[in-house]
Amino acid sequence: MIGESEIIERYFREGFVGGRGVMTGIGDDAAVLRAPSDADEIVISCDTLIEGVHFPKQDSTTHATDLGYRCLAVNLSDLAAMGADPLWFTLALSMPGADENWLREFSGGLRECAAEANIALIGGDTCRGPLVCTIQVIGSVPKGQALLRSGAAAGDAIYVSGDLGAAAAWLQSLENDGDTEDLAGLERKFWRPTAQLALGKELRQRASAAIDISDGLVCDLARILRASNVGAKLQLEKTPLCEALARRSEHEKTLKMAVAGGDDYQLCFTVSRGRQAELARLEQELNIRLTRIGEITEGDNLEIFYHDRPVSLDHAGHRHFTE
Amino acid sequence: MIGESEIIERYFREGFVGGRGVMTGIGDDAAVLRAPSDADEIVISCDTLIEGVHFPKQDSTTHATDLGYRCLAVNLSDLAAMGADPLWFTLALSMPGADENWLREFSGGLRECAAEANIALIGGDTCRGPLVCTIQVIGSVPKGQALLRSGAAAGDAIYVSGDLGAAAAWLQSLENDGDTEDLAGLERKFWRPTAQLALGKELRQRASAAIDISDGLVCDLARILRASNVGAKLQLEKTPLCEALARRSEHEKTLKMAVAGGDDYQLCFTVSRGRQAELARLEQELNIRLTRIGEITEGDNLEIFYHDRPVSLDHAGHRHFTE
Repeated sequence: MIGESEIIERYFREGFVGGRGVMTGIGDDAAVLRAPSDADEIVISCDTLIEGVHFPKQDSTTHATDLGYRCLAVNLSDLAAMGADPLWFTLALSMPGADENWLREFSGGLRECAAEANIALIGGDTCRGPLVCTIQVIGSVPKGQALLRSGAAAGDAIYVSGDLGAAAAWLQSLENDGDTEDLAGLERKFWRPTAQLALGKELRQRASAAIDISDGLVCDLARILRASNVGAKLQLEKTPLCEALARRSEHEKTLKMAVAGGDDYQLCFTVSRGRQAELARLEQELNIRLTRIGEITEGDNLEIFYHDRPVSLDHAGHRHFTE
Repeated sequence: MIGESEIIERYFREGFVGGRGVMTGIGDDAAVLRAPSDADEIVISCDTLIEGVHFPKQDSTTHATDLGYRCLAVNLSDLAAMGADPLWFTLALSMPGADENWLREFSGGLRECAAEANIALIGGDTCRGPLVCTIQVIGSVPKGQALLRSGAAAGDAIYVSGDLGAAAAWLQSLENDGDTEDLAGLERKFWRPTAQLALGKELRQRASAAIDISDGLVCDLARILRASNVGAKLQLEKTPLCEALARRSEHEKTLKMAVAGGDDYQLCFTVSRGRQAELARLEQELNIRLTRIGEITEGDNLEIFYHDRPVSLDHAGHRHFTE
């Protein structure tokens, strides 16, 4: 079986995009880096994906290519939520064995996502163990311009990008196995989320608060509310759904699933009233759907309405450890 | 059971040292940071520790305090090997459940190690899964002064700091269970390695190459040799041993174990001949043992001698995936 240095040589060096400011990359005790500009701040985030927890167990129907893509994409989503430009990432990968087919696929997906975001792999760690992938992303943002969760104010409009619920619907269909309507499209949204990096950059100095939707809109919006000490009114019927979900017969139930389910990796953000015209222009420029779904209020309540009728949700997004 | 945000609040926020340049720490999508000086480069490394792979399974005889300490210390060791000053770290922790006693102990050990190195916890990820801890450390070094593996030249002297073999001897004693001589001291060296940060800083502009000994002296020295395109002669009998190991009857066997076994987290480094007096002074100043154990040679062979007699080793350090 091949060793760690061969794994790195064969699968994690060639073909990855080169990095700006990488003085020493993979192959020493650590990477040595120069920030692109003294006028920038450094933005750092990390996310772990575990087989059987964050993605279904790998079998003949799942592709390591998709997993490689997804592991990086969900991390890039955190940079997007901060309005940051991606620079570099590290990969800590533990896996049961060194299956070269699996490694070829996994690194291929990782490479594809890295190329799209122009982010350089600068180091990491591979070892034998359960299938666990921790990626840490490093980006930059002009000083003082990072998008935080804490700036939302009463009266601000609440927006989401793209559409919600597809990934959660696919995971649900796995549990129910049987329901096969449009599964391919939903599955792709789960495995290949698009980090909204271009949108995040444009929201610098425009949005008052932002977060990426990893644990479900309601759960993640609640984090903005807590950080900003405000409440919100949400219009459930405004929730953007992909075509396959919009066609479903039980509309209210589907909407509730879409705002409670996780894994969307769209941005939820707030903007002051005066900026709505700017957002319409942005929607055109970036060719992305931006939907106003509610409003920030005084207080600390998150109220949800379906055509003006108050509704409640059974559960509010992922909560590891508390299920 | 408590949720992720409670875990962070209770165990990973209070009592950790504050960070220089931390504009936004734990609690947003990412941390926002300012490098201490424009004259510095950023140094980044990450290491994963997995239960049953990098440390024995947690049971009543092992302490989560020690594990927390060790997870950070082995990462700091990589910064030491680069000559870097620690700044910030992130923690990605997956664990089977949210056992509050375990969390209290683990975070206590982590906090202790962080305080000693003056490094700030800036973010991370906790989730349910197998016991896996990935830490990423970020440090700084004056531009162009990072200690690399690639600068060793024929004629340079090879040094190691501290003593070797204690951690490997303890792991061996676990397998053989029975041998109890001085186990407490050996065990402590395994769980509480001291990252040689002060030494690393002093070696900037002094050492021609450096590495930290995580996989065994022979294995890690070989990495310097490959990166520098040189060979080496090692005098096995010069290998520094701790008192408990130096007392053992089978001296040659113990020495071989000490240079092949891993988990020492001492530094192995090379210096040009002219600098040996400086090292003697450094040894006094830092109150650390620095032992000359061999010499860099032309070619690419690593030759090992025991009192001038060539010897061979059965195996050369950890090799994940190839056992």
